[in-house]
Amino acid sequence: MITVALAKGALLKDSVARFASAGLDFSQVLDPSNRHLMVPSKCRRARALLVRNGDVPVYVAYGQAQLGVVGFDVLKEHQMPVASLVDLGFGNCHMAVAVKATSGYKNATDLPPHSRVASKFTNCAREFFDELDLPVELVHLTGSVELGPLTGVAEAIVDLVATGRTLKDNGLVSIDEIFHSTARLIGNPLSLRLDSGEIQQIIDEIRNQTDLHRTIK
Amino acid sequence: MITVALAKGALLKDSVARFASAGLDFSQVLDPSNRHLMVPSKCRRARALLVRNGDVPVYVAYGQAQLGVVGFDVLKEHQMPVASLVDLGFGNCHMAVAVKATSGYKNATDLPPHSRVASKFTNCAREFFDELDLPVELVHLTGSVELGPLTGVAEAIVDLVATGRTLKDNGLVSIDEIFHSTARLIGNPLSLRLDSGEIQQIIDEIRNQTDLHRTIK
Repeated sequence: MITVALAKGALLKDSVARFASAGLDFSQVLDPSNRHLMVPSKCRRARALLVRNGDVPVYVAYGQAQLGVVGFDVLKEHQMPVASLVDLGFGNCHMAVAVKATSGYKNATDLPPHSRVASKFTNCAREFFDELDLPVELVHLTGSVELGPLTGVAEAIVDLVATGRTLKDNGLVSIDEIFHSTARLIGNPLSLRLDSGEIQQIIDEIRNQTDLHRTIK
Repeated sequence: MITVALAKGALLKDSVARFASAGLDFSQVLDPSNRHLMVPSKCRRARALLVRNGDVPVYVAYGQAQLGVVGFDVLKEHQMPVASLVDLGFGNCHMAVAVKATSGYKNATDLPPHSRVASKFTNCAREFFDELDLPVELVHLTGSVELGPLTGVAEAIVDLVATGRTLKDNGLVSIDEIFHSTARLIGNPLSLRLDSGEIQQIIDEIRNQTDLHRTIK
């Protein structure tokens, strides 16, 4: 049986739609009353694991799920041994450096050396500032990173920005874009190698559907 | 102005009650319609920062909050330089090793060497298994750790257990208790040293109130 790891939250609805186009109906996970974390597809050929964003690559890397859908941001932050198969095109957002609108900083390079930078994505942030050759002190937070500059725990933050609303509501502005992120279909490398065609067929159908979406746009 | 970092979630109600007994009324944070993460006390002498569990010691360690309330489990996992001031007695739970009820394992030492153990608390888990001298492979998950044994990603989990309901619902049993956890009042060491008496007064009142609760019980 094929197991698919799906991230709870913003990517879920589109993920379910993409698998539906490949013949796997996981719409039960969208039912607000659903409390199960393991949900069979209607055809019973497959099941979905409903897990947190950061756990999708873990289940795929360990082979407990052969396929998964997760944001590029998570893949880049956690660097697990999974195959990135299809850029699904939804879940658009970018990883940004943001500061207080009143700070006067226009670019990340304006930040004074040894500034404190708060982030949930400290690996991404470290890589970015290392490339700039700008030494910063990273403060790992697990939520509400926008509080960093407001409380003074950090001069800047590195965080995912979709609409920009959270930044604006908190008096912050984005001064640098680190990378653009979209949802990705990922696979377990060994499962793909041993696949007798069943997994590849799902991947192909999702890829075709994704190309179609792109053409319509 | 005194800033207090409070953890969202299970500890919040009791935390607010304890500060109320010290004259700081943060009850606004309990209003379901409240969306602010920084909330002044009614007397305006202090403010509360509403953050995630794991971020409480960060704000306190960096001195953006002089005081905070957080579970002992978080303190043990993250090892930040904060002063642990009062065992508040609420938020009782324990860090447990759990396995499938059908596994037959009765103690952590029954686990085969190199078993996989899933946890959000990988530092606590590593310390425990190191002391047992039992080599295990730790799998870091960020949520729904009980899925670990069900999907086969891990033979055992290390997780917080309060009522035991989640374990039972998922066919798991606790086979070892690593430590007991309760909520703690923590402080920023430098703020405590520089305090002119205002912070100490709050600590003393919370300590007295906590002793009173203990006596009544």
